[in-house]
Amino acid sequence: MSSKRFFFSFYERASQSFHDCPSLAKLLIFTVTVSSGSLVAYSDSKAYSGISDAVPSDTGNKKKKVLVLGTGWAGTSFLKNVDSSLYDVQVISPRNYFSFTPLLPSVTCGTVEARSIVEPIRNIIRKKSGEIKYWEAECIKIDAKNKKVHCRSNQDANSEAREEFLVDYDYLVIAMGARANTFNTPGVEEHCHFLKEVEDAQNIRRSVIDCFERASLPTLTEEERMRNLHFVVVGGGPTGVEFAAELHDFIREDLVKLYPIIQDQVKITLLEAGDCILNMFDKRITAFAEDKFQRDGIDLKLGSMVVKVTENTISTKERSGDISSVPYGMVVWSTGIGTRPVVMDFMREIGQTNRRVLATDEWLRVDGCDNIYALGDCATINQRKVMVRAIFFLLCDRLLVGLL
Amino acid sequence: MSSKRFFFSFYERASQSFHDCPSLAKLLIFTVTVSSGSLVAYSDSKAYSGISDAVPSDTGNKKKKVLVLGTGWAGTSFLKNVDSSLYDVQVISPRNYFSFTPLLPSVTCGTVEARSIVEPIRNIIRKKSGEIKYWEAECIKIDAKNKKVHCRSNQDANSEAREEFLVDYDYLVIAMGARANTFNTPGVEEHCHFLKEVEDAQNIRRSVIDCFERASLPTLTEEERMRNLHFVVVGGGPTGVEFAAELHDFIREDLVKLYPIIQDQVKITLLEAGDCILNMFDKRITAFAEDKFQRDGIDLKLGSMVVKVTENTISTKERSGDISSVPYGMVVWSTGIGTRPVVMDFMREIGQTNRRVLATDEWLRVDGCDNIYALGDCATINQRKVMVRAIFFLLCDRLLVGLL
Repeated sequence: MSSKRFFFSFYERASQSFHDCPSLAKLLIFTVTVSSGSLVAYSDSKAYSGISDAVPSDTGNKKKKVLVLGTGWAGTSFLKNVDSSLYDVQVISPRNYFSFTPLLPSVTCGTVEARSIVEPIRNIIRKKSGEIKYWEAECIKIDAKNKKVHCRSNQDANSEAREEFLVDYDYLVIAMGARANTFNTPGVEEHCHFLKEVEDAQNIRRSVIDCFERASLPTLTEEERMRNLHFVVVGGGPTGVEFAAELHDFIREDLVKLYPIIQDQVKITLLEAGDCILNMFDKRITAFAEDKFQRDGIDLKLGSMVVKVTENTISTKERSGDISSVPYGMVVWSTGIGTRPVVMDFMREIGQTNRRVLATDEWLRVDGCDNIYALGDCATINQRKVMVRAIFFLLCDRLLVGLL
Repeated sequence: MSSKRFFFSFYERASQSFHDCPSLAKLLIFTVTVSSGSLVAYSDSKAYSGISDAVPSDTGNKKKKVLVLGTGWAGTSFLKNVDSSLYDVQVISPRNYFSFTPLLPSVTCGTVEARSIVEPIRNIIRKKSGEIKYWEAECIKIDAKNKKVHCRSNQDANSEAREEFLVDYDYLVIAMGARANTFNTPGVEEHCHFLKEVEDAQNIRRSVIDCFERASLPTLTEEERMRNLHFVVVGGGPTGVEFAAELHDFIREDLVKLYPIIQDQVKITLLEAGDCILNMFDKRITAFAEDKFQRDGIDLKLGSMVVKVTENTISTKERSGDISSVPYGMVVWSTGIGTRPVVMDFMREIGQTNRRVLATDEWLRVDGCDNIYALGDCATINQRKVMVRAIFFLLCDRLLVGLL
């Protein structure tokens, strides 16, 4: 859910750079997030059509191995575009499907079924001209020196499958994405829901209903009932704002019919540490969303930084320095993304310290490495193109304002 | 999934006996289970229309309390038919929805989405003329002497909601169903999937894909791969047979496309302790199903009783007395239903020992109790009607044969 979606994608470059014929990328996604819902225009990237009938000359008859880590936006876009007849392509990811993340907030409330926003990665790769292998496993270490990746199955049920295995490569494409960023706030991992994966959305859905069922029990005091019906969203980015809006609509339009007695006790609070929500957009979008939230009765607390979460309460530090605790029924934590540990280890290994994500050149080649490419949320291009991207950002922003 | 579905239902009698005007029940369900799928004809029972505008005379102005335990077929049918304007009706069940169990085997393979076979109980009760209260909790003890039921919330996340609470009643309707019967076979609870609840079906679905993903990993030996792709179904009743057939179709029609390399290593085994599968039906149905299984390559082992299940192997005792163990990837246990512990405790309390389920008279009143009714899988009528039911059974059986 990063702001990268607002740009013309550079994902295809990695595959195209193999052919030395870069062309304008075809992936364009606009996500407009406002309180009343979301508009998603998704133009699927088309498979690269310039199939060459000769294997690269320097390899003789043996195809070079391309190893892709990840099946998210970046990895899947690459897979759709790579010419698998020229390379021996392998994919490794703990998730055997691609998920359309912009619709995740809608899955939390059942507006969209989880099944509708996923596509098995095996379905995607079997449409390619050459065979692509997929293994459901987690990459636990990248060994750039020996051109090997250490992997482990992510199924814990079976000990034999947990065995570590090595996969070697000629070209490595790192598209492992990111993880939810907790800023090391105590209690977040244990007590908060994230909204990054399909499972997260399904857990939130169950949790909302659980809160309502708990609040309906005859044993609870009024205070406990209020606590169970207090939904807190942390983070005023597109995901948090959209989830708060979806939850509000779900409660006001659907749940009130099923739980009529307790409808007046429901409260939604959105906590944002900054000065405004949706701060990456034009101010008019922010103002519109804030105004809509006020009308909807969603309690928006700006300048409110979460310092601790316990089983039943969430503590925030206000601008004044005061720390206050409020009881909650469910917290959804959506404060942006952080680096995955395995990527962090790899960055340390190649000397890219003091960075948030992997730095690449404009051809998505990881700085300081041979034949390693990185794309998506785990990478950033640190050269020239920055200006072009800034211009696109402004253009897209203008366009979004026009759409509202 | 009991054979009760083959009869005209007596469920409505419990509500109608309050009015002393029994009429022919309206719930009729036919489930024909054959290897190629299932035909389900479900005629929904209609709400009882004889609404009286006076509360029962003996209670004065205060309505009598009717407490219903369970939201399965029996409980839901009762709720649809009870005149809630005459009684103060309360429902307690750990499951806040009714599920259409005949379609559960289809949920295991994604033919039907779980959401499509459930209906929130709150949706059902809000359509009634009088208010019906629902609490998501488990009944842990029935205290017939004091006309009270001990309940506890089934959510473990929150300690305060786990508190036990008492609900009193004037009339109690026990419709708690049954649980999967393991015959105390060691290892079944720990290592087998059941197919009784919606969650079971969803777990099986995940587990099948997990087996295929595990089998695709490069680290596995050929033997381990074969083990992971060995699916065992225990029990040759309608549920087991239908699941085996669904799984076969799912693998042959869908999964082969996604996992083409390992398709020849898949094996499905159906273990049945008796002489034939589907022994409650006419022999021609049994023969048809057995023949179809043979053509489909499903390994049917008759006279094979499971004696032990470990993490990776399932041990069976053959007719000859030999015990053999085979490795498996997933086991689905579907050998019929057993009594729930709380019902067993209650039976002991009221002196109904040495029985499998609660015995009632023809008006569904529990023998030896006042104002307690029992219906569905947790009860059986032990008088007169037995002959009528036997005739209906034969009639239905004939009809089913005609439908094939």
